[in-house]
Amino acid sequence: MVTRIDSPADVSPQQQAVEQTLVDTVVASFDHCEDPRLRQVMVSLTTHLHAFVRDVRLTEPEWNRAVEFLTAAGHITDDVRQEFVLLSDVLGASMQTVNINHQAYENATESTVFGPFFVEDSPAIEQGEDMGFGAPGEPCWVEGSVRDTNGNLLAGARIEVWEADEDGLYDVQYDADKRAARAHLFSAADGSFRFWGLTPTPYPIPNDGPVGKMLDAVGRSPLRASHLHFMVTHDDARTLVTHIFPEGDPIGYGDSVFGVKESLIKHFEQQPVGTKTPDGRVVDGTWSRVRFDIVLVPAAQD
Amino acid sequence: MVTRIDSPADVSPQQQAVEQTLVDTVVASFDHCEDPRLRQVMVSLTTHLHAFVRDVRLTEPEWNRAVEFLTAAGHITDDVRQEFVLLSDVLGASMQTVNINHQAYENATESTVFGPFFVEDSPAIEQGEDMGFGAPGEPCWVEGSVRDTNGNLLAGARIEVWEADEDGLYDVQYDADKRAARAHLFSAADGSFRFWGLTPTPYPIPNDGPVGKMLDAVGRSPLRASHLHFMVTHDDARTLVTHIFPEGDPIGYGDSVFGVKESLIKHFEQQPVGTKTPDGRVVDGTWSRVRFDIVLVPAAQD
Repeated sequence: MVTRIDSPADVSPQQQAVEQTLVDTVVASFDHCEDPRLRQVMVSLTTHLHAFVRDVRLTEPEWNRAVEFLTAAGHITDDVRQEFVLLSDVLGASMQTVNINHQAYENATESTVFGPFFVEDSPAIEQGEDMGFGAPGEPCWVEGSVRDTNGNLLAGARIEVWEADEDGLYDVQYDADKRAARAHLFSAADGSFRFWGLTPTPYPIPNDGPVGKMLDAVGRSPLRASHLHFMVTHDDARTLVTHIFPEGDPIGYGDSVFGVKESLIKHFEQQPVGTKTPDGRVVDGTWSRVRFDIVLVPAAQD
Repeated sequence: MVTRIDSPADVSPQQQAVEQTLVDTVVASFDHCEDPRLRQVMVSLTTHLHAFVRDVRLTEPEWNRAVEFLTAAGHITDDVRQEFVLLSDVLGASMQTVNINHQAYENATESTVFGPFFVEDSPAIEQGEDMGFGAPGEPCWVEGSVRDTNGNLLAGARIEVWEADEDGLYDVQYDADKRAARAHLFSAADGSFRFWGLTPTPYPIPNDGPVGKMLDAVGRSPLRASHLHFMVTHDDARTLVTHIFPEGDPIGYGDSVFGVKESLIKHFEQQPVGTKTPDGRVVDGTWSRVRFDIVLVPAAQD
């Protein structure tokens, strides 16, 4: 699986023994850990870390570079910027953790990454209201339903939605206290929901730090596939954290954080100027509409 | 090799395919990297990182804990404290990098970790002088020779020596400008050297940060085996970075950074009070002596 360029094939048996003895010694250093889960994690981490170092025959300048990278990531991280989450995201570790902890269940809606831009105190909106609060972008009518995998309609599910504006920024990136293109509403008695949002557009993850430099060095784009975030909670169901992605997005599976799943790609139907909206709103220009029927895992499956 | 506690044996083939597809996608994201070595390192890193996450079935709280750990390590790191180096050290990654880059060569003296306490501007001393400069500790007479693996005596080799005092601190831990228990001297025309140092004593690595908390959580000691640092440079030889360790140290192979090698354990001979020193010095109490014959790899082997 690993592409070898400088092959370690010429490592002598004596040298391999020296290296393996060290691995064994480090693993044994966790023998007295009283927490069996912590011990398991540290042993696995250590084993894979040493396998990496040996696999690539890590040089001392590269080791120094790794220390510098982690240091820079630590120093740019503060209350509103989390470079280690970004690092996990762009290496696919965040998405793999989602895969492991939110496995596909029957016909339930699939999960994807949470991202760093959720806030607890989003504004409440009623059915059919606008979660944009003046954020720039093309209006998008979003409608759908909330059910469980047994087909029960779920009333009163809390639906949190948030997204970047057409300039590629979330509200909190302008000002920690700003709230726009973000809201929560509750599914109606028949499980349905509808609201106005913005047609999602692509944007770069913060790329002025060490993670951005790394992406640049390896020839990768920092752009995220266009998406609208959802978090759906209901007493009778497992919480769902996901996005929907517009069909035809040129970034698509090239998403910088590997969040795209086929089942989450939805048809956002473009509406020409002057097309009548479902609720008689006057829209000055184009708008789009999308349907998203959400299926939750019953809580009993937790 | 990895102790499994929560066995991932019940991961379905479908789920395994989901996880492997993500790994393959992340690996493929480096296809356009123009630096083949960087690509190799990133592919190997990503592959091992995902293998770790999948192996332990990493939970979301554990993922959060890892992000918090790295953030705390970043925030405690500054010009004089390097928590990521400590982390690499206590996981044995620093020592493995030394093993890989300084492989055993004929009868040459073996290498060990460099550590964070070397400084460029150590005081110069003449043969037989004291590198302690008032640092507390038992005096130790250190003598030896510098040769290459062909048996040639090497005159004028620069020998840098540094160590912690008996309170477990290096000079720079008191004050960045302090210089004590640290010096450099040059081997004599016959390759010999001799100086007064301190009998090495054990000390903890800095353990008031996240690495110290981790060691505590896993039941490991932060103590380093007692040691005296050497760095030996000569135009005709490969630079040697090593320590010598006193025989009989109760920490020994339990060294928190895995730096001990059998060939580097030396007999520090304890001298009773009143024993005459090699140079007629009056020592008020016990002292010790040790011999260290250094063998360098000829530069042509670089």
